[in-house]
Amino acid sequence: MKDIVERLSDYDTLKKVYHENDAEHPYPSASALREIVDITRSILFPGYFGSPTFDLETLSYHIGVNVERLNTLLRAQVYAGLSFEPAENAIMNDKTLKHKAAIIAESFVNRLPQMRETLVSDVEAAYLGDPAAKSYAEIILCYPAIKAISNHRIAHELLLLGVPLVPRMISEMAHSETGIDIHPGATIGKYFTIDHGTGVVIGETAIIGDHVKLYQGVTLGAKSFPLDENGNPIKNLPRHPIIEDNVVIYSNATVLGRITVGEGAVIGGNIWVTNDVEKGAKIVQYKRG
Amino acid sequence: MKDIVERLSDYDTLKKVYHENDAEHPYPSASALREIVDITRSILFPGYFGSPTFDLETLSYHIGVNVERLNTLLRAQVYAGLSFEPAENAIMNDKTLKHKAAIIAESFVNRLPQMRETLVSDVEAAYLGDPAAKSYAEIILCYPAIKAISNHRIAHELLLLGVPLVPRMISEMAHSETGIDIHPGATIGKYFTIDHGTGVVIGETAIIGDHVKLYQGVTLGAKSFPLDENGNPIKNLPRHPIIEDNVVIYSNATVLGRITVGEGAVIGGNIWVTNDVEKGAKIVQYKRG
Amino acid sequence: MKDIVERLSDYDTLKKVYHENDAEHPYPSASALREIVDITRSILFPGYFGSPTFDLETLSYHIGVNVERLNTLLRAQVYAGLSFEPAENAIMNDKTLKHKAAIIAESFVNRLPQMRETLVSDVEAAYLGDPAAKSYAEIILCYPAIKAISNHRIAHELLLLGVPLVPRMISEMAHSETGIDIHPGATIGKYFTIDHGTGVVIGETAIIGDHVKLYQGVTLGAKSFPLDENGNPIKNLPRHPIIEDNVVIYSNATVLGRITVGEGAVIGGNIWVTNDVEKGAKIVQYKRG
Amino acid sequence: MKDIVERLSDYDTLKKVYHENDAEHPYPSASALREIVDITRSILFPGYFGSPTFDLETLSYHIGVNVERLNTLLRAQVYAGLSFEPAENAIMNDKTLKHKAAIIAESFVNRLPQMRETLVSDVEAAYLGDPAAKSYAEIILCYPAIKAISNHRIAHELLLLGVPLVPRMISEMAHSETGIDIHPGATIGKYFTIDHGTGVVIGETAIIGDHVKLYQGVTLGAKSFPLDENGNPIKNLPRHPIIEDNVVIYSNATVLGRITVGEGAVIGGNIWVTNDVEKGAKIVQYKRG
Amino acid sequence: MKDIVERLSDYDTLKKVYHENDAEHPYPSASALREIVDITRSILFPGYFGSPTFDLETLSYHIGVNVERLNTLLRAQVYAGLSFEPAENAIMNDKTLKHKAAIIAESFVNRLPQMRETLVSDVEAAYLGDPAAKSYAEIILCYPAIKAISNHRIAHELLLLGVPLVPRMISEMAHSETGIDIHPGATIGKYFTIDHGTGVVIGETAIIGDHVKLYQGVTLGAKSFPLDENGNPIKNLPRHPIIEDNVVIYSNATVLGRITVGEGAVIGGNIWVTNDVEKGAKIVQYKRG
Amino acid sequence: MKDIVERLSDYDTLKKVYHENDAEHPYPSASALREIVDITRSILFPGYFGSPTFDLETLSYHIGVNVERLNTLLRAQVYAGLSFEPAENAIMNDKTLKHKAAIIAESFVNRLPQMRETLVSDVEAAYLGDPAAKSYAEIILCYPAIKAISNHRIAHELLLLGVPLVPRMISEMAHSETGIDIHPGATIGKYFTIDHGTGVVIGETAIIGDHVKLYQGVTLGAKSFPLDENGNPIKNLPRHPIIEDNVVIYSNATVLGRITVGEGAVIGGNIWVTNDVEKGAKIVQYKRG
Repeated sequence: MKDIVERLSDYDTLKKVYHENDAEHPYPSASALREIVDITRSILFPGYFGSPTFDLETLSYHIGVNVERLNTLLRAQVYAGLSFEPAENAIMNDKTLKHKAAIIAESFVNRLPQMRETLVSDVEAAYLGDPAAKSYAEIILCYPAIKAISNHRIAHELLLLGVPLVPRMISEMAHSETGIDIHPGATIGKYFTIDHGTGVVIGETAIIGDHVKLYQGVTLGAKSFPLDENGNPIKNLPRHPIIEDNVVIYSNATVLGRITVGEGAVIGGNIWVTNDVEKGAKIVQYKRG
Repeated sequence: MKDIVERLSDYDTLKKVYHENDAEHPYPSASALREIVDITRSILFPGYFGSPTFDLETLSYHIGVNVERLNTLLRAQVYAGLSFEPAENAIMNDKTLKHKAAIIAESFVNRLPQMRETLVSDVEAAYLGDPAAKSYAEIILCYPAIKAISNHRIAHELLLLGVPLVPRMISEMAHSETGIDIHPGATIGKYFTIDHGTGVVIGETAIIGDHVKLYQGVTLGAKSFPLDENGNPIKNLPRHPIIEDNVVIYSNATVLGRITVGEGAVIGGNIWVTNDVEKGAKIVQYKRG
Repeated sequence: MKDIVERLSDYDTLKKVYHENDAEHPYPSASALREIVDITRSILFPGYFGSPTFDLETLSYHIGVNVERLNTLLRAQVYAGLSFEPAENAIMNDKTLKHKAAIIAESFVNRLPQMRETLVSDVEAAYLGDPAAKSYAEIILCYPAIKAISNHRIAHELLLLGVPLVPRMISEMAHSETGIDIHPGATIGKYFTIDHGTGVVIGETAIIGDHVKLYQGVTLGAKSFPLDENGNPIKNLPRHPIIEDNVVIYSNATVLGRITVGEGAVIGGNIWVTNDVEKGAKIVQYKRG
Repeated sequence: MKDIVERLSDYDTLKKVYHENDAEHPYPSASALREIVDITRSILFPGYFGSPTFDLETLSYHIGVNVERLNTLLRAQVYAGLSFEPAENAIMNDKTLKHKAAIIAESFVNRLPQMRETLVSDVEAAYLGDPAAKSYAEIILCYPAIKAISNHRIAHELLLLGVPLVPRMISEMAHSETGIDIHPGATIGKYFTIDHGTGVVIGETAIIGDHVKLYQGVTLGAKSFPLDENGNPIKNLPRHPIIEDNVVIYSNATVLGRITVGEGAVIGGNIWVTNDVEKGAKIVQYKRG
Repeated sequence: MKDIVERLSDYDTLKKVYHENDAEHPYPSASALREIVDITRSILFPGYFGSPTFDLETLSYHIGVNVERLNTLLRAQVYAGLSFEPAENAIMNDKTLKHKAAIIAESFVNRLPQMRETLVSDVEAAYLGDPAAKSYAEIILCYPAIKAISNHRIAHELLLLGVPLVPRMISEMAHSETGIDIHPGATIGKYFTIDHGTGVVIGETAIIGDHVKLYQGVTLGAKSFPLDENGNPIKNLPRHPIIEDNVVIYSNATVLGRITVGEGAVIGGNIWVTNDVEKGAKIVQYKRG
Repeated sequence: MKDIVERLSDYDTLKKVYHENDAEHPYPSASALREIVDITRSILFPGYFGSPTFDLETLSYHIGVNVERLNTLLRAQVYAGLSFEPAENAIMNDKTLKHKAAIIAESFVNRLPQMRETLVSDVEAAYLGDPAAKSYAEIILCYPAIKAISNHRIAHELLLLGVPLVPRMISEMAHSETGIDIHPGATIGKYFTIDHGTGVVIGETAIIGDHVKLYQGVTLGAKSFPLDENGNPIKNLPRHPIIEDNVVIYSNATVLGRITVGEGAVIGGNIWVTNDVEKGAKIVQYKRG
């Protein structure tokens, strides 16, 4: 056994996939991020997640405790994320990084009221868009779309605040749980809903307006991506679609490239779209059967 | 921080997404429902789930304990579900609601032998339909279809017994775990199987006969849904397909609306079907490549 | 209640779905397999999973402990898998089975350096193939493809070593977590990557070369399968595609049957392919929209 | 095995040690009582137990949440205690019992400020009485006396409020943890401290003044107890000592019967006392060695 | 660090305190023994420990499941105990040892009805002997004596059946929890009770009759023990007291050596006894104070 | 409820028992200290605690991992302890405190070989001193004395290294578990053993030689302690006994004050000693009974 342990400890074989941990600079913790998401949900939707009993009189105690806990957890995870990117943050010392993390955590907390307003609009959109929905409660507690979208809104906010790695970890949690894969970079308006959801992919530079509805299996992807002189893909180019207000895209449709789907357009199921779509257009599959 | 806590506790901002919890009327518990599903599986498939050791002589002790535990858990969760719909159950007092919950739990338990018979047929269908299947054990322990279908059969039974919210929570658990989204309202016959399964969607009013097989990504959905005078979708209208006995539907096919796919029909992969399909018909995609 | 317990304990109703457990021959444990996968990942990607703190000096201690723990766990689970197939292993006594399990576990451990080399190539492929990827760390920690492929490489190795049931359980874990369903029998080369991944299906007898990239929803499936004289599917026939080096297959494409997709070919999204594809060919959907 | 199970299920053999559980009337839960004690401590000594981070600004949120949680838990456990004594409470229906439990829980909560004041005096007494004590923090976090006394003050309050069974369970928790056995019926003044503590026994009807200090192994017990006509001990008679203010009792001394140890008396170690002791007296062992 | 690890791994420094673990021959597990004690208690006192809900109709299911679980756990722990003593069991092979363990486990299970009868007598003795006891329930749930005595009766039975190490581990669990230290070798009659209990010590060869009552701090110990020619104590000589029926021994009394305390004798508190005591004698301390 | 929360949050009522937590300066964690003790035991007694399987070949991996983990945990807890004493450490900044903590943790680790040597001597003393002891294994796994003494040797080492609060927390853990209360300040030689142990108290400034044996209930305490001008006890004065080599002290004996018990002396049970005892003296109780 000594022999195999030695080979597996050989630096040459592991240098690309090795990460030196030290207790002062942990990498972001999946379980802490899960708690961050849970606490954020319990602040935004009081009574549906988290605290077992309370009423309107005692609500502010619960929100107070949760906001403080969220702030503390977030500060640590943001710091872990910042520490992970030595290139950008190496010039800062630890104290400065911790200070930066504290400011980011507080900024996030200050965005919570706005976030609740947006998520309420998403719940309303889900309720209005699904004849099978019996109540807001059913949507908040059960619908995978709400899980995926709330994780996205959290992750997107953290991305805007400049946190590395953490946003992607948060969106992959929702991807794993719901089969809905929204890159934290995507910009999404109010009253957004996704029906069923499994297989949906929304790319990093996609921009989605208000009152948009997607069905399961819809891809908002990139057509192709240019390489730099070393053959590496060029990062951060806009390469995913712009979906304007009031668009509906049916199941398994694929919309690719930096095109615009105009206001109120309807894209039918299983359709493959790689060019701009005019406002109000209805693109459908040739029917068979 | 006081300021942000106050804004987040402001009733106007949270009234749509606030649920007052009191200890006497908890909302249904995800972990209790998970245990209910686990216990039901251990009763139906003895030896594959749950108890670590037993033999035929001591089997009835294990089933006895599990049936009693299931009954107790179910009574509490059904009560929680009934309490959640104040509109319908407000006129009943607590004692009457608890009595109703007890009767529903017992009715469910009495349906277990029937449920096992049906699930045995599903296991057989999976075994016969998959050349990669090595044994019944492999199917019961590993196949996502069995997880999704057993959750569905539990959820459907509870829906028929009039339990709110709980059935949907149970089916979403399977959706999250398997990527198979079966609405608890769907009616499904014996010897039902789904291969691979990720992305399958089966709508609320779908009706599926015996010996039906679906592949991954198949949608049995609604074409559209009428709104009432307030612009809200009208609930409970039949709007999903009827799939008759012995139908096979290949991967990523989409079947929409209250149409009938006749006995023994075969729907090819990636096909989009919105009209009735005759008995024995074979609908295929134009081949390319 | 006595009555329903008796009916549920009736051997006739449960003989097909009953498994007698005895403490000496447990069935494979899902939680032990999860630990096996976690430990293997922590050995292959030191610092990203598992041990909280260490550096290059102390790395070999951690790898030593993990290799020993992996060996112990694996021996027990391989033995459980072997015990599960009485037909094949009934003629061996327990001691021989345990000896066989020990040899298999050790063979697996000896394959770890090779496995790391291959998985490093997969990480590189994911990095080069995705403009949204910010670092190797992001890929190792977040990308579902790496989870699915590492589980596959573990499961495939165990399948080659002749372990029943366990490989399928390991690949279904990844299927549930990522929506990517790779049968442990599939043969997959180096520098393999899957983008997004939800809905991907790769069949038991598929053969995939080096530098292949798949997108979400791609199926490498069987067209049909012959039945034996009893109407049961004939097991183990080659019935899934051969994908040669440098092939790209876009989202939701379906490739069926024992066909060959030649080196460097590109299959467009939503395409249905059931015949051989020539080297370098580009098969695309008629564009609409 | 059937035979032994049958014998063990025979009512005649178990009627004295059998308790029928039903879900509506559970017996008090040890883990819930442990949580009740922990929460009470975290309310009384903010920052030493419980919440990981907070400051004076956010303290009231934490206390608010804890008080509400305590109230909820206590209501349930008090109800469980009341349900356990059918003789006394059989004439009340469930609703009345629950109402009674709610009133008791609230009364307990209202006593918390008074309880903190008393416990602060106990901490001070421990600090002043022990040259080895380095800080209040050390006493609050480490000293078994504080654990035993805080459990006692909680249990005694519940006993005064008429709760059956629960107070004894709480005092036995402290007994098990510290080796200090204080019956919840004992009446104990302010500035009370016990050094080391293992083996201390304080009986049901003991009365202890202010500024009393005990050492390890001290017993305040009963000399004998009269039986009723059936040979059963007569309950609730005063049979334990009265210890007045400023008394010190050294290690392993035994004080028995309804005697009075007068103000400021000192009882030496290993002494056996069964008669009244005058104010200011010093009772010592004949020295040897 | 390498240096200190090397020194700590040096065989010379650890040979006396090193135990080679292999997965096939684990040492007895504290947590498994804890579960064994808990299950035994739940079989003997149905409804006070373990299963949350059941009634007389379903009791036998619970007892059946618990008896089987106990049997399985016990077999494994007895085997672990037997494996621990290589000297005595080295000539047996594993299969024989496992067979021996199975026979011992079954013998233990068959003693359960007798064990319940004896423990019921202990509960009765505690109730009759303590004016503070309010109900049998309080005694079963709270009294440390019942915990210590039930552990002892379990441990003693296993010792009689020839199990090494395990009985001592079980009695030390009770010692830690209650401060009552009863060596598993001690022989104890019916209707035995201990009041308060902290500090009680009962030695390996003590023999106690029926209806005996001890108070806290009582020692039934050895006066001295002869050494063999190597200076090692000679094992297994009778060296602790014989206590006949109906004896009462008050707090902190010390009874040493192979003496006999005759029927009905009463030993006062803090007394030191090293000679035989006649039937009916009352030995008391000179009173002071 | 608002009112009671307000009163409980009033600074005046809580200032003496309030500790402001901030995430950067946590107080020492009981569960981390428990892990530190467990890891130290598993390093010192390999195979009895901790790792489930290993042999001499792989032992150094386990010790390496454990030493590193111990070092990391200890650094954090020592830092927490240092942060707790603002008076002494306020002039140091965080970085200096962390540096100091790292040096202390490393010093502790370097003392491990010495600590093992001493604890091996304690195990030998227990084996030789107890005819009921069957093996070293039984002593290491079961004997409360070994638990209490190993915690003491750990705590004492940390006290010598200048760590506040943490040593006392570690010794109180053993006190709670075993009823043996050894102040971390006590100095104790090799081959030390305690039989049974419940109720033993060893004070802060006690000094104990080699080959000393104590029985249950023995107190090595202070006779009295002088107060300073403010009435507070003067800290750190020598006030507990010096026990020279080869002394035996029987159960419940009490030895008080800065006296010396000379080499080879024997103190009988229940004896009260407050003056020096000569070498080889035998102090016994007047026998009765």
